[in-house]
Amino acid sequence: MQRHFHEELDHLKQTLLAMGALVEDQIRRAMRALVERDDVLAKNIIERDREVNRYDVEVDEKCVELLALHQPTAGDLRFITTAMKIVTDLERIGDQAVNIAQRALELNLEPQLKPYIDLPRMADQAQRMVKESLDAFVARDTELARRVCAEDAPVDALNHQIFRELLTFMMEDAKTIPRAIRLILIARFLERVADHATNIAEMVIFMVESKIVRHTLA
Amino acid sequence: MQRHFHEELDHLKQTLLAMGALVEDQIRRAMRALVERDDVLAKNIIERDREVNRYDVEVDEKCVELLALHQPTAGDLRFITTAMKIVTDLERIGDQAVNIAQRALELNLEPQLKPYIDLPRMADQAQRMVKESLDAFVARDTELARRVCAEDAPVDALNHQIFRELLTFMMEDAKTIPRAIRLILIARFLERVADHATNIAEMVIFMVESKIVRHTLA
Repeated sequence: MQRHFHEELDHLKQTLLAMGALVEDQIRRAMRALVERDDVLAKNIIERDREVNRYDVEVDEKCVELLALHQPTAGDLRFITTAMKIVTDLERIGDQAVNIAQRALELNLEPQLKPYIDLPRMADQAQRMVKESLDAFVARDTELARRVCAEDAPVDALNHQIFRELLTFMMEDAKTIPRAIRLILIARFLERVADHATNIAEMVIFMVESKIVRHTLA
Repeated sequence: MQRHFHEELDHLKQTLLAMGALVEDQIRRAMRALVERDDVLAKNIIERDREVNRYDVEVDEKCVELLALHQPTAGDLRFITTAMKIVTDLERIGDQAVNIAQRALELNLEPQLKPYIDLPRMADQAQRMVKESLDAFVARDTELARRVCAEDAPVDALNHQIFRELLTFMMEDAKTIPRAIRLILIARFLERVADHATNIAEMVIFMVESKIVRHTLA
């Protein structure tokens, strides 16, 4: 039974990592749909969000089942309840990919406003944060989790920089406004991806350190 | 023991409702800070977010404790795990109040762009959705939860309407752009409040109906 439980827990970790890889890929593809002005890819991303949602339900069900059947305590209990929270963040990162894809479709109706340089950089950083936050979770690595939290500020800075640059475009030529606003929104979607990764990292720290506190009290 | 558990569960519900009332009040005050151009109130909201965060930790700890000490099954188990997810949404609704208050402070540095009519309406609807989603949770009321989900579309529609109106301002007079963008962001923050309420409502439906499925299989 005990062995079985740890296999199940391991399977849960693998499923979460697979879901993480999927939403990372969704963000990556959404950015490609934007940069390459690829409508087919954008629609494909929107369609593929169902897979993300299926993972959400699957992880949730698995966690409730593990709690019900094995009644874990201490570290394992907190690991499973944290997994249930993390899955919600992953699902919402997937939603951001859909949001980006939708804006890309709208942007493709008009000529490109400017070459995209900062947005792909921002996306790379946000994706890395997602990956690292999940790695921190499965390894219960608070050091890595703290590093993820520290990476949020540069992403916010990029967001502000993009905002200011696009503001200049808009002030100089009103015709650019609808496109510039969509790009501002895309920057904000990426910022939210980074925020979700930060949330995950914070939960990892909370999970590990509360456990320590509990252990000290026990 | 059993009676004790139900008292604890009841206490958990009350705490969640109190947290819900707090974040609703934060949104309400943030809108007042915007409409009445009240810097002191805006700063007060930002400060008060700590209270929201304290609730977040408190509910989380209480849920883990209930799971560890009482090892609940079936409906109670799912109720507690859902509470742990809902608290994250409530905390993020609190963040939206802070976002609005920050934009209000920035807007107060310039003359008011236009009278605010649709934004307060949008805020009222989003707040009501928050309240109803929590009522649906504590009463395990899927009918009310479904009503909340249906209320999301009118909020989205208001958001688009506000966006289009402010776009017109910006196109006609570039000087309005920085203010108009902040108002567009505020509309999006309110839309996210409504989204969080919708998420809560969906989790309530999932919680109640999965339980039914489980009961059918048992």
